[in-house]
Amino acid sequence: MSWHVYLSGEIHTGWRARIANGLMEEELDVELSAPVIDHGASDDVGVAILGAEQRDFWKDHKGAGINAIRTRTLIEQSDVVVVRFGDEYRQWNAAFDAGYAAALGKPLITLHPEQHDHALKEVDRAALAVAREPEQVVDILRYVLNGRLPRR
Amino acid sequence: MSWHVYLSGEIHTGWRARIANGLMEEELDVELSAPVIDHGASDDVGVAILGAEQRDFWKDHKGAGINAIRTRTLIEQSDVVVVRFGDEYRQWNAAFDAGYAAALGKPLITLHPEQHDHALKEVDRAALAVAREPEQVVDILRYVLNGRLPRR
Amino acid sequence: MSWHVYLSGEIHTGWRARIANGLMEEELDVELSAPVIDHGASDDVGVAILGAEQRDFWKDHKGAGINAIRTRTLIEQSDVVVVRFGDEYRQWNAAFDAGYAAALGKPLITLHPEQHDHALKEVDRAALAVAREPEQVVDILRYVLNGRLPRR
Amino acid sequence: MSWHVYLSGEIHTGWRARIANGLMEEELDVELSAPVIDHGASDDVGVAILGAEQRDFWKDHKGAGINAIRTRTLIEQSDVVVVRFGDEYRQWNAAFDAGYAAALGKPLITLHPEQHDHALKEVDRAALAVAREPEQVVDILRYVLNGRLPRR
Amino acid sequence: MSWHVYLSGEIHTGWRARIANGLMEEELDVELSAPVIDHGASDDVGVAILGAEQRDFWKDHKGAGINAIRTRTLIEQSDVVVVRFGDEYRQWNAAFDAGYAAALGKPLITLHPEQHDHALKEVDRAALAVAREPEQVVDILRYVLNGRLPRR
Amino acid sequence: MSWHVYLSGEIHTGWRARIANGLMEEELDVELSAPVIDHGASDDVGVAILGAEQRDFWKDHKGAGINAIRTRTLIEQSDVVVVRFGDEYRQWNAAFDAGYAAALGKPLITLHPEQHDHALKEVDRAALAVAREPEQVVDILRYVLNGRLPRR
Amino acid sequence: MSWHVYLSGEIHTGWRARIANGLMEEELDVELSAPVIDHGASDDVGVAILGAEQRDFWKDHKGAGINAIRTRTLIEQSDVVVVRFGDEYRQWNAAFDAGYAAALGKPLITLHPEQHDHALKEVDRAALAVAREPEQVVDILRYVLNGRLPRR
Amino acid sequence: MSWHVYLSGEIHTGWRARIANGLMEEELDVELSAPVIDHGASDDVGVAILGAEQRDFWKDHKGAGINAIRTRTLIEQSDVVVVRFGDEYRQWNAAFDAGYAAALGKPLITLHPEQHDHALKEVDRAALAVAREPEQVVDILRYVLNGRLPRR
Repeated sequence: MSWHVYLSGEIHTGWRARIANGLMEEELDVELSAPVIDHGASDDVGVAILGAEQRDFWKDHKGAGINAIRTRTLIEQSDVVVVRFGDEYRQWNAAFDAGYAAALGKPLITLHPEQHDHALKEVDRAALAVAREPEQVVDILRYVLNGRLPRR
Repeated sequence: MSWHVYLSGEIHTGWRARIANGLMEEELDVELSAPVIDHGASDDVGVAILGAEQRDFWKDHKGAGINAIRTRTLIEQSDVVVVRFGDEYRQWNAAFDAGYAAALGKPLITLHPEQHDHALKEVDRAALAVAREPEQVVDILRYVLNGRLPRR
Repeated sequence: MSWHVYLSGEIHTGWRARIANGLMEEELDVELSAPVIDHGASDDVGVAILGAEQRDFWKDHKGAGINAIRTRTLIEQSDVVVVRFGDEYRQWNAAFDAGYAAALGKPLITLHPEQHDHALKEVDRAALAVAREPEQVVDILRYVLNGRLPRR
Repeated sequence: MSWHVYLSGEIHTGWRARIANGLMEEELDVELSAPVIDHGASDDVGVAILGAEQRDFWKDHKGAGINAIRTRTLIEQSDVVVVRFGDEYRQWNAAFDAGYAAALGKPLITLHPEQHDHALKEVDRAALAVAREPEQVVDILRYVLNGRLPRR
Repeated sequence: MSWHVYLSGEIHTGWRARIANGLMEEELDVELSAPVIDHGASDDVGVAILGAEQRDFWKDHKGAGINAIRTRTLIEQSDVVVVRFGDEYRQWNAAFDAGYAAALGKPLITLHPEQHDHALKEVDRAALAVAREPEQVVDILRYVLNGRLPRR
Repeated sequence: MSWHVYLSGEIHTGWRARIANGLMEEELDVELSAPVIDHGASDDVGVAILGAEQRDFWKDHKGAGINAIRTRTLIEQSDVVVVRFGDEYRQWNAAFDAGYAAALGKPLITLHPEQHDHALKEVDRAALAVAREPEQVVDILRYVLNGRLPRR
Repeated sequence: MSWHVYLSGEIHTGWRARIANGLMEEELDVELSAPVIDHGASDDVGVAILGAEQRDFWKDHKGAGINAIRTRTLIEQSDVVVVRFGDEYRQWNAAFDAGYAAALGKPLITLHPEQHDHALKEVDRAALAVAREPEQVVDILRYVLNGRLPRR
Repeated sequence: MSWHVYLSGEIHTGWRARIANGLMEEELDVELSAPVIDHGASDDVGVAILGAEQRDFWKDHKGAGINAIRTRTLIEQSDVVVVRFGDEYRQWNAAFDAGYAAALGKPLITLHPEQHDHALKEVDRAALAVAREPEQVVDILRYVLNGRLPRR
């Protein structure tokens, strides 16, 4: 059986590709999913499909609704949820996804630099692993699927 | 993984075909399902299979029971539920399906003309998107699956 | 232990008072709850508290959100849900509540005139009783709590 | 029946007191709860009770564990969850609580200034009301409990 | 905290009174509940409240619906379910209640003579205790609440 | 998607074969499952695998445990549960399965002769259809899957 | 609102009394519960109430069934579960309770000497706090209820 | 449909291989899964992937977190859980898994020598079968899947 892993959070660096590449090299049977990571599309989708709004609040509201159709469904379908917090932006949606996944009982892996440790302590406490680099997530998934430690 | 989308509600116009056609043109991996949309069969099924009734109430009761075997199972199996309210009929079963899906936590899309906005405000509030035309539902599903905005 | 009964649906006739009076006469230990039945307040609450909107759609959306805080909480807390469909209006919110309650496994009683039987067959099928008059709801609750049949 | 409302999020301004005062003036039957809002105690509790740690990460981990005993239990027991995002700090725990409450189906009210609207759009989309001032939360609770609009 | 114990099944002997008396003598804090045990009222309630039916099937159907409002609610509210199978009648509703309670994870005690052991083996296997006499149920509840063995 | 239908209850007549044949003729995509219907094997399995018992009660207990591994798993996996009550035996396990399935929210079809209508009224009330002959179950499944009424 | 704390595990030392005394001194609103801690009664209860058995296995089986009525109900009703592992005995039931509570999402506190750390690592990982002394459990509960750190 | 069986517990003898061989000989459609059974890898995985720790407690904590990603996911996905208790070690994680599986409603089979019967009585009571040898587990699975008794 293939495992479904949802990659939530930061969308401005290539961390998802590093995980995907690592899994491919290891030939692990993992199906990855993620939110839409085209920032512009994600922001505009509500009004692009459902019609313009004068107020930015409702533009965001419409867009967030459509994005939630994707993200909630994929989190529900996933076996493991990885949540990445980057250096910039507030990324409250990443923390929201972490809380949502935790309440559903999904095993959670967080991925962030040490500088955020204190601010993320509640999120990290709900996680089963706190990683610093995407390659560690690959290592975790290889171990979890195949029982093999990293060769490093 | 394929997505299952249940198309609830109005059965007298071709809105389901417009969604199915749109999805086919886009080659989206979506499995559609729906209630039985042959109005006569849906009304008669109870007595046709389980025997005649003198009172219309029990004829309807028997038929609604068999239809519920289909609709509840398909709603449970679906990832997304679309509910269409047309111009005519009271369509309480559509609103019932919407409430049922909402309580199960299924992402909900409503589809109706503006004239019903006020009467449907509680149902729309539970939805993640309110569409006016079937093609907008196709646009939403394309974005949700592939992250692409409509070309319009 | 007191029973909580939620009275959903039509807000323009005195059916809730007839049930409340009947329960009081019988001295039944039932705690009734209901949506806000002041139609104007219910329509305006969103903009009255959270600020005006130019579009009616968003005015309704804000109001429906606040009303949902009340209705969903009360339905969750209830032991039995009664849903009334009157002669006028489309009352999709009543059917929505019925579907919501059914999916939560709440015992459901519908209350409506015969003329709506066919249109309400799916809702009635999910109910454990279909009443015509509020006094029948009182009779059901007296039996359910005390095991006594009506004296009529 | 009394309602339980959990006040999550920002701990450096008096917003909780403003809500408590407003509820008291209105004599509303609401039981408020909150995380421990003594910042120092909240940070130190892990090592103060369970013994010192050399690494800050584990100090935070121990403290977050004990705080989670309180916060998860209170969120589970609550009927409504209010989440406040202030001007400072990243407040990922507030967003985590919002996601946790949303997945449990708790009605959610967010409370934050407009400047965070875009960053909080996913959290706001999951809420049934977005308030700017604590007094609006009081207004919502008065309406939800008693059906009365604000006198303003 | 008081315990709620639901006494399902056979309604033609005084076994419920023997349990109630035993609990009273022991001054145990147990709240008992049961289906309506007036056989005639239970059979007639549907048509007595909701109107006559020509076919016995629908008379039974209406009555069973109203009775289910009571029984399902009480089983949901109970901490322990006791199911009694007597010498006569098929008592399928008792076995139905047992299955219903088992699926909800309610601790189950069965109460029946040895002669039914083979026919009830699936039901007994889902139970945490199989008693022969009502007094054994009292003994179990005394132990479960107070930790005291019977003096016999 | 294929539907899973669990056929519970009476094991001494060929009703399951009649349903299986009917489905095959209709080429319906239904996966049937059932308890072990070899009566002797079902009775002996506990002691045959796990060792002899002096008391019949424990022999039955061991056997019922192993059978429950099968039946509960299959009921959980099923989309629809059919429960057959025959002319003989008490068949409390059939009624137990019906209650178990009902509490899980599985659509339920009962199948029994009219003579048991009164004794089965509580079970029938929880069902969405009450059939008399296995061919009616085939008719229901054809309609539920394909929307076609029987040609009769 | 009072908190319910279930004290699972070791029954041969006075750790429960130390927690109860500490809570009383602090005047904390906590309702404690526990398994029956009279070892002899707990072992004999099955045969004392339900009749003798020749084989010890079935004596234990009957007793464990009755004890489970108590322990599962109390764990379900609790807000927090504390599990104590002492120096002696295998205490598999304590670890079983911990797993049971964890799957239900109950906040878990373990209490054991350091010597068991390695053997209990999976259980401790599921806990929100690992305490060494009963007084630390009191400290945790005081903080969780009142937000006060220990004065030590 | 293939069945998923999770083999929890003791990792120092070849009992899993005996079950796998038996299933292969019988050509049963069972997918087996297990925790990582390389003891060294299982102990070291936390620090090997996520970085060294000075204290053994945190080394174990990190490792147990990663192992829990595997074990909880596989238990959730399984249809049946087998838990083996061997002669040595305390194996609290095996009992924890049993409690976790029981609370999820997974059918449970325990596998252990008679000498542990008394200490394991609570765990055995939650199981649907207590086996002594791995071949009995194969016998149970053959019966459960195919309805055939062992030829012995």
